[in-house]
Amino acid sequence: MRTKAAVAIAAGKPLEVMEVNLEGPKAGEVLVEIKATGICHTDEFTLSGADPEGLFPAILGHEGAGVVMEVGPGVTSLKPGDHVIPLYTPECRECEYCLNPKTNLCQSIRTTQGAGLMPDGTSRFSTLDGDPILHYMGCSTFANHTVLPEIALAKVRPDAPFDKICYIGCGVTTGIGAVINTAKVEIGSRAIVFGLGGIGLNVIQGLRLAGADQIVGVDLNPDKIPMAERFGMTDFVNPAEVEGDLVPYLVDLTKGGADYTFDATGNVQVMRAALESAHKGWGESIIIGVAPAGAEIATRPFQLVTGRVWRGTAFGGARGRTDVPKIVDWYMEGKIEIDPMITHTMPLSDINTGFDLMHAGESIRSVVIY
Amino acid sequence: MRTKAAVAIAAGKPLEVMEVNLEGPKAGEVLVEIKATGICHTDEFTLSGADPEGLFPAILGHEGAGVVMEVGPGVTSLKPGDHVIPLYTPECRECEYCLNPKTNLCQSIRTTQGAGLMPDGTSRFSTLDGDPILHYMGCSTFANHTVLPEIALAKVRPDAPFDKICYIGCGVTTGIGAVINTAKVEIGSRAIVFGLGGIGLNVIQGLRLAGADQIVGVDLNPDKIPMAERFGMTDFVNPAEVEGDLVPYLVDLTKGGADYTFDATGNVQVMRAALESAHKGWGESIIIGVAPAGAEIATRPFQLVTGRVWRGTAFGGARGRTDVPKIVDWYMEGKIEIDPMITHTMPLSDINTGFDLMHAGESIRSVVIY
Repeated sequence: MRTKAAVAIAAGKPLEVMEVNLEGPKAGEVLVEIKATGICHTDEFTLSGADPEGLFPAILGHEGAGVVMEVGPGVTSLKPGDHVIPLYTPECRECEYCLNPKTNLCQSIRTTQGAGLMPDGTSRFSTLDGDPILHYMGCSTFANHTVLPEIALAKVRPDAPFDKICYIGCGVTTGIGAVINTAKVEIGSRAIVFGLGGIGLNVIQGLRLAGADQIVGVDLNPDKIPMAERFGMTDFVNPAEVEGDLVPYLVDLTKGGADYTFDATGNVQVMRAALESAHKGWGESIIIGVAPAGAEIATRPFQLVTGRVWRGTAFGGARGRTDVPKIVDWYMEGKIEIDPMITHTMPLSDINTGFDLMHAGESIRSVVIY
Repeated sequence: MRTKAAVAIAAGKPLEVMEVNLEGPKAGEVLVEIKATGICHTDEFTLSGADPEGLFPAILGHEGAGVVMEVGPGVTSLKPGDHVIPLYTPECRECEYCLNPKTNLCQSIRTTQGAGLMPDGTSRFSTLDGDPILHYMGCSTFANHTVLPEIALAKVRPDAPFDKICYIGCGVTTGIGAVINTAKVEIGSRAIVFGLGGIGLNVIQGLRLAGADQIVGVDLNPDKIPMAERFGMTDFVNPAEVEGDLVPYLVDLTKGGADYTFDATGNVQVMRAALESAHKGWGESIIIGVAPAGAEIATRPFQLVTGRVWRGTAFGGARGRTDVPKIVDWYMEGKIEIDPMITHTMPLSDINTGFDLMHAGESIRSVVIY
């Protein structure tokens, strides 16, 4: 079949919206009509060329929602008409990782996914001239139709709006999951969130959901305050306005350091500040942000020997097929909010505007509605 | 009273064995006759001048065992004749730290202890001329008699030999506790221990106690093999004999990385290798060693984002008054071994020989018997 897609032709160039060929689903695969997709910093990271593992040409996008159109041989858990969210971290429920309760990093299709291919080692996308176009993060939601492995699709309730729940495919789950699955924040905790972008806001609402007593937001941009407060921030700190060092200021503000700190910036210096503003004895710091290629985190080992713990999280530690449907339920039940974070919507033809808004810092999330 | 002590007069100089004055115990304090004391790398670290917080003149030593001679006013949990092990990490059971199950770092007397003083801000030791001599780590076990706060003494069974259980005051508890309290190693785990000195051997026997399936020891000195095997090492790796990089070699050897890795070297490059040879998704790396002042650990944040956890441990995460008596029981019941690690004993007058043996790498542990 033919479908419309925004194709990343090469690093550093705008996406090109065009007709492409899409082969139908093979064994274990599912054809999905994408109804909406968010534009995430990770798409931008790859498109910019900063991602050393980025491959081109490819159809980017990994934060979508849609409807199953057709299933390949052997697919048993999905049928045409099911509403689904694509998962860049699949959940096969069979590999060593899925069977270990300590991780969500299903490895069953990692190699082919990293190479921009379906599990059989080929791509379903091609140009109208027949040249292959690569998949991206196993999702490629910047196409109106896409093919995914069955294990990379979460089935969600049919009454949830695509243009909101697409954000659960990455940002919402990453932020809330970092709190719930990775940090396992307890009621009454004090926490610091570095970076009040889309991920940071979702960390904040995760902390509110987890019953944190103090939720400190740290950002250089005071324009972020109203939205962060809406999601549960109790204290705002602008590092540019702190006299002296930031870390002791934050330690003071949290009465000895935070029980949990979260980096949602991708800046390795901020990651260090996040670790060091965690409480001696038990504070845990969770890295969410993606750092530039080659960047390294550092600290004195004494910080760890005196009880701080340094962790990271990918996709919020969520097992997608199991956890994503629950988060959709939370949204529909009003336990979490998404709508105010979707600041811009646009048709696929205007997708590059979404990247422009991100660069300008004007959007929290732009969503393409097909 | 007068007692005999090995006094650290200044950084970088040998200890001087001499008579010193010792005041009796004040409120909440206990006078202890030290019967035996180990010589630990931390004593050497301070004596050498490398410890930026080292103070002189002081009576070093923090790995002792002895008998209560006299108790000060208000002391209720100890009486003359009780056998005790001094605790450089006390356990007041009342401070914010003691009441938080996530840490063992009792802070109740931290400030005065760090300043080489008893909790009232004074020293009990002085020269025969009346000049004060500082305490060290709240213990000063290089004196035949010493005064400690009640909360810094673990009461142990009276039939345990002082010249062996003194080692439980630091090395044994640090190594075994890192496995049991900090890492919480599960039965069947794979582990890597970097550094097969006294701490490393105790990590190894902790891993055996915890039921680890694979216990890899890493050391540049193959002479360490027989003793490490005696304590439970299943595989030995000499980094000097590995072709190519050490980390991928260890990841291979442990079938994808170790569930738990332990640094018992204090070398920040080794700490990095320890983290990076932990298993993707769930491997945890525990820093035990004390790094040189100012040294920093570093890694790419991707190591944490893909599921590795970086921790440290102090005194093996043990709460001394609670846990040390149990470890003494384990020794007496044969669950753990100490005797083969006490490679040298000497009278106080020969204490500098113990430091020489340490420098030469000839001892695992030297113990001074009074």
